[in-house]
Amino acid sequence: MVIKNFFNPESIAVIGASNEKEKVGYALMNNLKNFKGKVFPVNIKRKTIQGKKAYKSILNTKEKIDLAIIAIPAQFVKSVLEECGKKQIKAVTIISAGFSEIGNIKEEIELLKIAKKYNIRLLGSNCFGTVNPYINLDTSFSLRTPEKGNIAFIAQSGALWISLVEYSLNKFGFSGYASLGNMIDVDFADCIDYFNKDKNTKVILCYIEALKDGRKFLNSCKKSKKPIVVVKVGRSEAGSRAALSHTGALAGSYEIYKAVFNQGKVIIADSLTEALDKAQFLSEEHIRGSRVIIITNGGGSGVMAADLCGIKNLDVIKLPKKLINKINKFLPYDWSHNNPIDIVGSSSDKEYKKVFLELEKFKKYFDFALIILNQQKMINTKKVAQEIINFRKRTKKGIVAILIGGKEVENASTLLHKNLIPNFFDIDRAVNTLKGMK
Amino acid sequence: MVIKNFFNPESIAVIGASNEKEKVGYALMNNLKNFKGKVFPVNIKRKTIQGKKAYKSILNTKEKIDLAIIAIPAQFVKSVLEECGKKQIKAVTIISAGFSEIGNIKEEIELLKIAKKYNIRLLGSNCFGTVNPYINLDTSFSLRTPEKGNIAFIAQSGALWISLVEYSLNKFGFSGYASLGNMIDVDFADCIDYFNKDKNTKVILCYIEALKDGRKFLNSCKKSKKPIVVVKVGRSEAGSRAALSHTGALAGSYEIYKAVFNQGKVIIADSLTEALDKAQFLSEEHIRGSRVIIITNGGGSGVMAADLCGIKNLDVIKLPKKLINKINKFLPYDWSHNNPIDIVGSSSDKEYKKVFLELEKFKKYFDFALIILNQQKMINTKKVAQEIINFRKRTKKGIVAILIGGKEVENASTLLHKNLIPNFFDIDRAVNTLKGMK
Repeated sequence: MVIKNFFNPESIAVIGASNEKEKVGYALMNNLKNFKGKVFPVNIKRKTIQGKKAYKSILNTKEKIDLAIIAIPAQFVKSVLEECGKKQIKAVTIISAGFSEIGNIKEEIELLKIAKKYNIRLLGSNCFGTVNPYINLDTSFSLRTPEKGNIAFIAQSGALWISLVEYSLNKFGFSGYASLGNMIDVDFADCIDYFNKDKNTKVILCYIEALKDGRKFLNSCKKSKKPIVVVKVGRSEAGSRAALSHTGALAGSYEIYKAVFNQGKVIIADSLTEALDKAQFLSEEHIRGSRVIIITNGGGSGVMAADLCGIKNLDVIKLPKKLINKINKFLPYDWSHNNPIDIVGSSSDKEYKKVFLELEKFKKYFDFALIILNQQKMINTKKVAQEIINFRKRTKKGIVAILIGGKEVENASTLLHKNLIPNFFDIDRAVNTLKGMK
Repeated sequence: MVIKNFFNPESIAVIGASNEKEKVGYALMNNLKNFKGKVFPVNIKRKTIQGKKAYKSILNTKEKIDLAIIAIPAQFVKSVLEECGKKQIKAVTIISAGFSEIGNIKEEIELLKIAKKYNIRLLGSNCFGTVNPYINLDTSFSLRTPEKGNIAFIAQSGALWISLVEYSLNKFGFSGYASLGNMIDVDFADCIDYFNKDKNTKVILCYIEALKDGRKFLNSCKKSKKPIVVVKVGRSEAGSRAALSHTGALAGSYEIYKAVFNQGKVIIADSLTEALDKAQFLSEEHIRGSRVIIITNGGGSGVMAADLCGIKNLDVIKLPKKLINKINKFLPYDWSHNNPIDIVGSSSDKEYKKVFLELEKFKKYFDFALIILNQQKMINTKKVAQEIINFRKRTKKGIVAILIGGKEVENASTLLHKNLIPNFFDIDRAVNTLKGMK
């Protein structure tokens, strides 16, 4: 599969490589300085680029090249692509802008023709290329390469990536990134197929403005053994209007998209935050379902969580009588006797632990546990976090925590994050992470 | 108005004051040690409590007492309340539990009878009392008294308060708090009336499980000159069930509540986070409306924000032609020419400033500005934050910022927070802050 060349090339040519700091070709070379394969700079004028021998043309290089990255003015792209064909390069990323996004559709059709003639797969144009932190491949313009992780991100938008990488630091890592840009050729389906086989990827995240080929996308989703989370913009008139002026994408009816997503068993997120939260959640355990157990030491927060679960079609299950009787033996008399399991404010980490141990025996009754911790005088929040971690290890259930408090709960939060258990102050965000995962 | 005594007493009696650390009466005395008025401990056995002279009965004190706080076992509350009546105390908080929440409804009716006989207003039972950080009044069991601020919080739940105070530290302060508990007498309407006249309060936040008297509540809301934000639980079957087992509250049909809230021009929040975000937003400027301008340096995030605005019934206005022409003079050619105003990734703080200056001249066209900042190589995020602050000062519009990035945007975030401009990573949360404020 040629698509592999975009993410796992052994040799790269940078066409338009530059010594001038403000040029894209400079940033590209700089971003590739730790790349674990070979890099061949191509520049018609210079003999060396950033200390490396440069080539006048890609045809002057003698070695096999897996991936060519083009970053030269639009009018020269066509002839350079011909040269890539002659050199038998099978994967070409076109970073250059100035095509369909400003109305030059004809030019793109010509590029596609050349690509077909030489059996080339094209990524772009007007894109940020690809990232694979495992081999220090990074042709994007982010401020740094993200940490290694198991979330693959595919998007039309480029700028979003830069800020997402910054956001992800110390939180989660990526297995790869593809910026599709104008999507002349390589599309969501191609990348999904690739990441489905990639050993580092556990979950695939797509930010979609528009799909060009719904059927192809659906087929790839159906084939995928890994969970796919999508966030689709253009759900409202205002959003569709904005998408049109952003990438010229015709967002189309969201209802139709939803039907496609549902058929493909794709997990739909309603916002970028929800998509990222779901991806982090799924990157640890691939658990689907809708049956929720809520454990809390505060009545009010338990009520709010249950309320939101109900609104978002999650099933706040009724507790089996046997379980109620077991729990009744050790919890204070005024516990809720119900789901949410309100262990009440006077309880400590010990009560959390005891409830977890009982729930373990009844684990076939639920898919997810929403664990709420309200900071109180009596409670050691780090110990509770440790019990939550143990609970997940033993049950393999989908667990999300809600921590309500200040400094004291921040330590618990850090500990949970380190163990890849999503946790929030925001009850909404926690419930949104679990919704729509049937 | 007697209700004032609960929030601004000059003298307090603590009935059940204790020297034993694990007792509620100990915590109460301890929490009141910086109280700016007089405190009279009442204890039948001890001569001194925490260094203060103690009284066998409230009737033994000679001075006038504004507020009595009762924290003794339920069975003794009745006779002590009689004594309060004889002492002509007009405001009594019953912290003690063991009444209607465990089925003892009769006892509460008797308490109410005594109160009526002596013209006493009762807060509770089964509550956390009141907090006023301006006079160091704090009968709640939070880990610390919150900072002085201008948000008043009224809630049935108690435990929620503890964690909320922790959450609020370094973010926002409170003008007061009332824990209503079983709501025998003093209710939401009474407290709204009080906070409406309180000079420190700018916005009133209510966490409601159930109302006992909808008409009284509605009248108070209609009279209020200050914005009232409510978050109501029991919107789903699961939530109603949970509320019932929490405080015995019959949540009732959410549709009916919504009708009451809308009539009272109350601002409805769908979650606690949204309620807190809205309260912080309104505590700075009391702006209502639905017309939104979006300014962004990233196309994707602008599209997502516009999309969510559309879904949540906010009006992403079309830009006046004159404004487009003005902006066109200085922004890069590929800016969006539309709302969202995408100034594109190559722009810096200077472009933000220029757009803000133009928008200032067109400020009659919009109510809110949603300003998005994607971290990029070229941008000085702190300078952008400063421009946002200036923009708010000059226009007095409702402004919410979305900062997408890592460490670099955290500094901008801190600066905005210090100037009370709500800002989030989460696009959802920003849009939710503005929705439903017509």
